[in-house]
Amino acid sequence: MPTRPSAITVGILGGGQLARMLALAGHPLGIRSRVLDPSPDAPASAVAQHIVGDYTDPQALERFARGLDAVTFEFENVPASSVERLESILGGRASIFPPHASLAVGQDRLLEKQLFRSLGVPVTAFAEVGSIGDLRRSIDAIGTPAILKTRHLGYDGKGQAPLPRGATDADITRAWHVLANPGDRPAALILERVVEFQAEASMLAVRSRDGEVRMYPLVRNDHDRGILRRSRAPFSAFSADLPPGIDTEDLERRAGEATLKILDAFRYVGVLGVEFFVSGNEIIASEIAPRVHNSGHWTIEGSITSQFENHLRAVCGLPLGETAMRFQGGVAAMHNLVGRWPDPTDPAGVLAIPGCHLHLYGKSARPGRKVGHVTVVGTADEVAHAMPKLESIAAAAWHGAQPPHPPG
Amino acid sequence: MPTRPSAITVGILGGGQLARMLALAGHPLGIRSRVLDPSPDAPASAVAQHIVGDYTDPQALERFARGLDAVTFEFENVPASSVERLESILGGRASIFPPHASLAVGQDRLLEKQLFRSLGVPVTAFAEVGSIGDLRRSIDAIGTPAILKTRHLGYDGKGQAPLPRGATDADITRAWHVLANPGDRPAALILERVVEFQAEASMLAVRSRDGEVRMYPLVRNDHDRGILRRSRAPFSAFSADLPPGIDTEDLERRAGEATLKILDAFRYVGVLGVEFFVSGNEIIASEIAPRVHNSGHWTIEGSITSQFENHLRAVCGLPLGETAMRFQGGVAAMHNLVGRWPDPTDPAGVLAIPGCHLHLYGKSARPGRKVGHVTVVGTADEVAHAMPKLESIAAAAWHGAQPPHPPG
Repeated sequence: MPTRPSAITVGILGGGQLARMLALAGHPLGIRSRVLDPSPDAPASAVAQHIVGDYTDPQALERFARGLDAVTFEFENVPASSVERLESILGGRASIFPPHASLAVGQDRLLEKQLFRSLGVPVTAFAEVGSIGDLRRSIDAIGTPAILKTRHLGYDGKGQAPLPRGATDADITRAWHVLANPGDRPAALILERVVEFQAEASMLAVRSRDGEVRMYPLVRNDHDRGILRRSRAPFSAFSADLPPGIDTEDLERRAGEATLKILDAFRYVGVLGVEFFVSGNEIIASEIAPRVHNSGHWTIEGSITSQFENHLRAVCGLPLGETAMRFQGGVAAMHNLVGRWPDPTDPAGVLAIPGCHLHLYGKSARPGRKVGHVTVVGTADEVAHAMPKLESIAAAAWHGAQPPHPPG
Repeated sequence: MPTRPSAITVGILGGGQLARMLALAGHPLGIRSRVLDPSPDAPASAVAQHIVGDYTDPQALERFARGLDAVTFEFENVPASSVERLESILGGRASIFPPHASLAVGQDRLLEKQLFRSLGVPVTAFAEVGSIGDLRRSIDAIGTPAILKTRHLGYDGKGQAPLPRGATDADITRAWHVLANPGDRPAALILERVVEFQAEASMLAVRSRDGEVRMYPLVRNDHDRGILRRSRAPFSAFSADLPPGIDTEDLERRAGEATLKILDAFRYVGVLGVEFFVSGNEIIASEIAPRVHNSGHWTIEGSITSQFENHLRAVCGLPLGETAMRFQGGVAAMHNLVGRWPDPTDPAGVLAIPGCHLHLYGKSARPGRKVGHVTVVGTADEVAHAMPKLESIAAAAWHGAQPPHPPG
């Protein structure tokens, strides 16, 4: 009598490229994914069951939840009401990871920065802003240059207004009117002092249900007009251009300590990304992503276990996989393909580059949209050799949406 | 106006684990797979479009072929009539790779050995057998021990009858009656002299549409009662137990030369596997697989480009990827999970082994059935350390179907 094959089913709220890469990582482990996403051609639909429906549609949530062994999400802006409804449908039969609280904090720039401060994690000066009066007082308190941001729903440089060094009253009024609510409803904003930084970094870590934590090597990131353009790992291998006196080993240690504090504060389960600014020899926390993160896509080829596989292992209660580079001394670089894919029917250009790995998401082109990424892994020399070709492919693809008010 | 995403669609005849791993490799490249397979729960159906239908069903073939950019197959026993019908449906709009002729040879042990001989590739003594008279004459000519085999449709040790050293007339009659056709219809059999070998090996290679060839490192294989149990690469790293005087570099060079001759003879496109016996310092060709091959599964983690990705690249006319080990000095070992998966709901045992990669195929357990595989990649020391744990996992899974007449 044949026994049934392995049958763990994970539900993912959101069916974009992160869900797609989670689903791809799950199949070899015997983990099937089911996504809930309102878009009929969501990227994950090619590799996962797909419930087409709104995140707040009770019937869609009901169908989505049927028979799931675990639930996770690919974006932090899942409505809290959806999570609550799901929890009531699941009735303890399956858990939702990462935990609620990390989702709430990941959705809110103010809570995020308050968390950093409460944990003793270095953070830039910031203040809550609900009115133009608050804004003026905050500028006096924290100084300029600064950025006024919406607390919620901002990403990739959207929902931001800069306040230049020595901002005038006209600057302040202008910034206020960009983000203030229509009428005179109170705004939910945050003012953040601009950090003068020499580099951007992120730490990806995974925590299991029983509290085991594994960290990937610190990643060096480059953003372009608010959109992640490139990630390179480990950070220490890509630090030759930094001012002397920056101790990358020490930076990595401190970023790891900060990340560990955040993981433990939430009793977190799954992959967490924490973004940092490197300012002199300081590491200053910028934001958290309670999910797999774009700056960890290189782990598919670069690490023994990818962030996607480790996230699934964690939320399913399976042992974590190793997070070290695939080989000692190996380095990795990942470039996003933003906007359009140079020739949508012909991936030959990238595939001809030795050691390059292409990842397309099955999305149509649109300015500012991440349609894929390219990774190269190897020795430092090999990666340095491939990098200019990658740069030119990524530049040809680049079709960024100029954010209304570029930060910094 | 958004442009459509990359949309190459490859059709695969057969929806088993090979098709599943091809489909998984295709998604990141923007290649979608569509499989034709009569089984509603074919392993590939979770990650590919699935036309449920018989390979000879004209309507199923029609639906399968619609809009395909390229066609390939995951097993060599595709009926020739299906391939011909597909070619007529496609009308030159899309090509079927690997080529016809390699399929015909891969299906027929006699053609296979005749090909080796015609190309000057070392092969064991063999003779065509259609009657018991042929069998007697052949034994006189090539000697014993030998194996009588069906020309067609044999794999994993099925369709074979051994003739021991100094076979008696009773042995010959017995072997004949195992494989002869009912009534007195002529049989299509081959007698092969048993090769005394010290090791088994295979060469995986890929050839592009324009004739570029790339070879993976020579693989060392271990079979158990006709079923592949373990593959290790590169061969040279796993040769310490071989008799002195075997020059593994030279073996690898000669296996490569033989493989190249076979590829070029067919004007082959795609991945080809060639199995060899290592007998003293000789390399003797045993059989070809005109498709991705079980002894190349370790390439998913062990090589820069997996056999699955390279097969798709080749059949789609894309540039080939590098076939070297992911890092210099790296080694890989793959164990099949045959029969049953120790605990179908809990992959934790394997996942707890450092550096291990699990691949389940979503199949139900059955004696002799390949339900998954486990790969470990690393330095020779790391792999040696993980190997006993892999062995015990694979042994716990092992539930082999004893073939009716074990070879050798």
